[in-house]
Amino acid sequence: MEKVGIAILGLGVVGGGTYEILVEHRQFYKKNHNIDFVVESVLERSRERAAALGIEESKIVSNIAEICSNPEVDIVVECIGGIEPAKSFVLAALKSGKSVVTSNKELFCKYSHELERVAKKNNCGLFFEASCVGGVPVIRALLDNLQGNKILSLTGIINGTTNYILTKMAEEGSSYLDVLKEAQSLGYAEADPTSDVEGFDAAYKLSILSSLSFHTKVPFTEIYREGITNIDAVDITYAKQLGYTAKLLAIGKNGENGIEVRVHPALIKTTHPLASVRDSYNAVYITGDSVEDVMLYGRGAGAKPTGSAIVGDIIYCATHPSHTYSTFKNTEKADSVTKFVKNFESEYYIRLAAEDKAGVLSKITALLGKHGISVAQVVQGEERAEGKAPLILITHLTKENNIKKAIAEVNATGIAEVSSFLRVVS
Amino acid sequence: MEKVGIAILGLGVVGGGTYEILVEHRQFYKKNHNIDFVVESVLERSRERAAALGIEESKIVSNIAEICSNPEVDIVVECIGGIEPAKSFVLAALKSGKSVVTSNKELFCKYSHELERVAKKNNCGLFFEASCVGGVPVIRALLDNLQGNKILSLTGIINGTTNYILTKMAEEGSSYLDVLKEAQSLGYAEADPTSDVEGFDAAYKLSILSSLSFHTKVPFTEIYREGITNIDAVDITYAKQLGYTAKLLAIGKNGENGIEVRVHPALIKTTHPLASVRDSYNAVYITGDSVEDVMLYGRGAGAKPTGSAIVGDIIYCATHPSHTYSTFKNTEKADSVTKFVKNFESEYYIRLAAEDKAGVLSKITALLGKHGISVAQVVQGEERAEGKAPLILITHLTKENNIKKAIAEVNATGIAEVSSFLRVVS
Repeated sequence: MEKVGIAILGLGVVGGGTYEILVEHRQFYKKNHNIDFVVESVLERSRERAAALGIEESKIVSNIAEICSNPEVDIVVECIGGIEPAKSFVLAALKSGKSVVTSNKELFCKYSHELERVAKKNNCGLFFEASCVGGVPVIRALLDNLQGNKILSLTGIINGTTNYILTKMAEEGSSYLDVLKEAQSLGYAEADPTSDVEGFDAAYKLSILSSLSFHTKVPFTEIYREGITNIDAVDITYAKQLGYTAKLLAIGKNGENGIEVRVHPALIKTTHPLASVRDSYNAVYITGDSVEDVMLYGRGAGAKPTGSAIVGDIIYCATHPSHTYSTFKNTEKADSVTKFVKNFESEYYIRLAAEDKAGVLSKITALLGKHGISVAQVVQGEERAEGKAPLILITHLTKENNIKKAIAEVNATGIAEVSSFLRVVS
Repeated sequence: MEKVGIAILGLGVVGGGTYEILVEHRQFYKKNHNIDFVVESVLERSRERAAALGIEESKIVSNIAEICSNPEVDIVVECIGGIEPAKSFVLAALKSGKSVVTSNKELFCKYSHELERVAKKNNCGLFFEASCVGGVPVIRALLDNLQGNKILSLTGIINGTTNYILTKMAEEGSSYLDVLKEAQSLGYAEADPTSDVEGFDAAYKLSILSSLSFHTKVPFTEIYREGITNIDAVDITYAKQLGYTAKLLAIGKNGENGIEVRVHPALIKTTHPLASVRDSYNAVYITGDSVEDVMLYGRGAGAKPTGSAIVGDIIYCATHPSHTYSTFKNTEKADSVTKFVKNFESEYYIRLAAEDKAGVLSKITALLGKHGISVAQVVQGEERAEGKAPLILITHLTKENNIKKAIAEVNATGIAEVSSFLRVVS
């Protein structure tokens, strides 16, 4: 029986989960694949973490060189996260002829071109299913199953923390800050939640998924990014009444005018399959020119679900003697012919505090009309304050720049003030 | 640039769709993969079909030997369906060194062991993503992504025709026969709908999916199979009132007592992600011991969605120099140690026509109790006829055999008659 040696870098949530899966399933993998997967080495500063997992002292190392020079190690699993030292460690492993499996979205998003070049040069595998959306099998679907398609768009709920927060806000009517605190105490949100709640995490993943989908590098810096920290519980309540659910969406489109990539909160029709993706579940909804619509749904984070993606890659690497890499032109920057659409099109939800007088609505709609914006739905809110009443508008499709100009002009009139606006995905 | 020659056997819906995708995307694949995919040959008796697709006369052949001996053909795509002549053609292609991509669920379900043996012997690829659930990327997810898991269960809506019929019955209150006629006139159901409506199609797919999931051959003959032809619109209406949706489910479970495989109509909670899979959409809900829950959703049939799966396999075959095969012990029969559970457990929906008198309900529940069946929910229907009133019971978990015995005893009392019963999946 073949033996395949594994080294795990970092025993945090994902690294620990991966270790446990490998140990618990050792006999199962022997039986199915005739391969004995053995964790030979772990790189982890915390002896407590390693001990808690029952890892022998002799397997714990403190520098990458020990792993690179260990002939028993075939595959290095990187679960450190962030750029350094993860990047140097991955490069060192590849240069010493070890294949790498990584869950590191930021690293793969920013440096996939460099990692892939070094992997190819050293004839090593480089696998990254776990970098995007945990246990949801989206990377391999894009790399393999959907290659026959021109991918037209992908829309994803690809961050578990923000989806948990928005689900709780919608179902319990709580404020953003109250739910964030609860999520932190439950371990669903980190002490510094910036990467999740400001949309960085989703944008890294969107960069990877869009690059694979559209066959050109989609740099992180091209992604419009807006987090959920300013979401008002009031808007979630109004949205629900109008048949919408608020989600942090990652959207990639490849149309006639170019590629459009954005991460922002949005309202989505409750009948859309993505609307029922609750709590920390994630999903990616992909439209291809042949396959039509496909949705992949599951746990987007967590020790075992993400560990499942890593172990899937480990087994694939061990059972497929030749390596394939990503199929997009894996460069640092986008192709010179690639255009990015910044002034994108959307429908919009606008909440105003309007003077409670006749003629105000017609003035506002006239002003919007001047910018080519037509209104699809109007709802008068109930709580009046200081002579003003909430007014909710849903527009037809228009351009982002038009909405921003129109909002500035409405505010300048003095008869109404825009309290909030959200993009609407139908 | 490498050229890869394709031969397509059968230009029906799927073969035709595959041809169109290959032709329309030829430049796109050249750019992405540096491979020129050329359809060299089609085996099709109808000159009209071939002409309608614009295929040159010179590419149309009438026997498999011409394809096997054509050195320009690298990959043979089998879209004939059924056992013969498809089986002989696939074996001939493999024996002449051509890799095979097939969409044929019946053939792969019944003869995968034989096809795989010949493919391995001749060092050819054998790909079958399109055999199950059209454009939904479920085969590769099981073969690659989820290998790290013990798959505990899979529940699928994996037949488009029956899901279309049940959706229409639920949303329009129509009878089974009326919707079937409509589906036939729209081309969603075949003139002889047996394979779909009696659950054969779903059972072939379940055999393949369960074999991959549970790492042992799950023969078609072990699957409990019941179609939708006896579904009464009344039960769909009552189910809706109780918060359930009727679906034709394919269920595979791997538990302590063995493997349980069944295809039958069932009621599923409307909050379950599978309940919102409407019309001809399909989905497979998989639970693994590490990944937890994953759902894969999309078009389960149709020219382009199924063609997308075939072309994905063609590109994979052409870009991966070594072939991998299915990872279950691909034998004709199940392993001798595999046990199949026939007397499975479920909750049940029972509709009775009961005498409209005091004490009847308590007699019925007492009788059920004698068989260890406890009742979770009781609803009295409204339309009374001939002194009888409809009574709907939902039971807690019990065994199939207990329900059948209890129903026979209830019927024997004369105080109530069981009009219908359906399994409930919560």
